Formats: sequence, C-alpha cells, structure tokens
Amino acid sequence: MDTRDQLIDSTRELLWERGYVGTSPKAIQQHAGAGQGSMYHHFSGKRELALEAVQRSADELLAAAEAQLRTPGTAVERITAYLRREREVLRGCPIGRLTQDPGIVADPELRAPVDETLTRLRARLAEVLDEGRATGELPAGLDTTALAATVVAVLQGGYVLARAANAPEPFDQAVSGILSLLTAF
Amino acid sequence: MDTRDQLIDSTRELLWERGYVGTSPKAIQQHAGAGQGSMYHHFSGKRELALEAVQRSADELLAAAEAQLRTPGTAVERITAYLRREREVLRGCPIGRLTQDPGIVADPELRAPVDETLTRLRARLAEVLDEGRATGELPAGLDTTALAATVVAVLQGGYVLARAANAPEPFDQAVSGILSLLTAF
Repeated sequence: MDTRDQLIDSTRELLWERGYVGTSPKAIQQHAGAGQGSMYHHFSGKRELALEAVQRSADELLAAAEAQLRTPGTAVERITAYLRREREVLRGCPIGRLTQDPGIVADPELRAPVDETLTRLRARLAEVLDEGRATGELPAGLDTTALAATVVAVLQGGYVLARAANAPEPFDQAVSGILSLLTAF
Repeated sequence: MDTRDQLIDSTRELLWERGYVGTSPKAIQQHAGAGQGSMYHHFSGKRELALEAVQRSADELLAAAEAQLRTPGTAVERITAYLRREREVLRGCPIGRLTQDPGIVADPELRAPVDETLTRLRARLAEVLDEGRATGELPAGLDTTALAATVVAVLQGGYVLARAANAPEPFDQAVSGILSLLTAF
C-alpha cells in the first residue's frame, strides 16, 4: 500500500473510532506512519481525506451488496443472501454510522456520499424487488420503493439493536422477521 | 424546574449534541446555569448525570410507545399508530443514537439502560403481536419475537436513512414498507 492509500485507510479507521471532529490531521499522520509534508502533498487537509475515506467505504458497501444481489435465484433468495451474508455486526455499518457523526451530517459535502450510497442501495434493492414483481413472485401492487427502504432500514436498525445489546442476536432476529414476511408471499 | 432537573436536562441535550466524551462537567454547569458546588451537591459527577439523563430518555421513550400500543384496536392498528405517530425524525432516537456514541457503548453501566430500553420495547411489541396471533389476526406460525425486533429495527434504521438524506421521506417509506407487509395478512 502506498502512502496515499495508507492515509485514506487510517482516516477511515479513525473516523470509525473517534468521529470526524475527534480525528486530527496529526492523528491521521501518526496512524499512517506518514509525515505532515507527505500528507499535504497528497491532500489539501482532513476534509479531503475524509471525503476519500467515505467514498472508499461507500464503494466497498455497494460492491459487497452487488456481489449477493446479482447472483442467480428469485428476488427473495437474492435479498436473503444479501441480508444473511457474514457481517461484523457489532462494528456497525461504516456508512450508516456516519449519520450519527455531527461533523459529517453538518457538512453537506461530507454528507453527500453517505446519502448517495444509501439512496443507490435502496434503488438497487427496489430493482431486485421489481424483478420479483415482474415474474409474479411478489404481488403486483407491492410498493417496491417503500419495501426497499424497509430492507435497508432493517439492516441499519439491526446494527443499532446489536450494538445496544453488545451481541449480534437482535440483528439476526430483525433480519429473520423481515424475511419471514417476504417469504410469506 | 429545580437545579437537579435542570442539570439532567442539560446533560441530555449535550449528550445529544456532543456525545459523552465531548460533554464536560463545565459545559453541563454552564448549560444548566448551575455552579460547580451545586452540581457536585446533587451528583457524584458526569457519569452519574449521564446515567440519569439516559434513564429519563428511556422512560419517555417507553411511555410514548405505551401511549399508542395500549389503545383499542387490532394488533396491526396499534403498531401502525405507534410507527406513524409524530416524531422529530431528523433528530433521531434519543436512545438509539447512543449506540453510536463510543463513550456510552464502551461503559457497561451506561450501555445497560440503552439495552434494557430497546429490549423492553421489543418485548412489548412482541406482546401486541402475540395478541394478534391469539385472535387469528396474524398467522399462528409467526415468530413474534423476531418480528418485534424487525419493527424496532425499521424505526431505528429509518432514522439513519432520514439523517443521511436530511429529509424524513426515507423514514416514512421504510415504515410504509413494513406496514404493507403486516397488513397483507
């Protein structure tokens, strides 16, 4: 990994652990083992680094979702694979968590990639649900846009419940509940 | 409001705005308009104040849920009333948000009331769903414990989506999606 990558990865790690306001340029440099000159050679400052860090998490999240959603199978099977895939539940979602970071939501430019990622994820899930509706697997009257938001909310809320309990069980229960409703069709 | 109450309310406000680590005893005193002596007369320190503050938010959350869940009507009608009640969606849940506060989740004593509140909320929703199952409104095989976790996760995740979008719409969509599945029975 080159210095630029190392700086971005350190920023992701620190954003996760300390939040935007709690992450200083100095801490990023130390975590990355990079000098101040090197950091300012690559980036204008902490904000640009945070933007790159958020973008990298966003890309990973969408790629990981796509890996499950593009598999063969019915719409519900693909959504099941997506919801049931292995996750570090207690760490939470690297994108969703940023919505609770006051330094991120207060800055429209930093909030934008968070919003865009969750919007794209919902749109992709709605597409899968639309395919299920088209094949008759799901009812014709189903509001797939609403249901896609529900599926993403179950994931994000499942992380909240798991972190409260310090255990993954409530996350698994929340996923089981939505899947039991989806498979009832 | 007496000084003790004022100190607790200021702590709630500051926990919300700045998080546990970012909330200093001095900031609490200034926000409450109370002196240092007065604060330490009522509380051993910031931690005890935070515990009281979290407990007060927890009591309010459970009382507000109960107000809707104990109304007459079918199980799905009561859950609909609970999910659709007026909320300050963009502020998020005062309890759920604490799960993203590293200073809260790292301290078992501060995390305990957060966990207990969400656990009690899930248990209460499971009870309502059990009643719906008993009357035949909901299917006999329904896993009400899992579905109760789903309902709470939709709320908590709905807040996450709304904060990302800086708009309440994704919250409303997530709620519409789960209600469309529940009313399909």
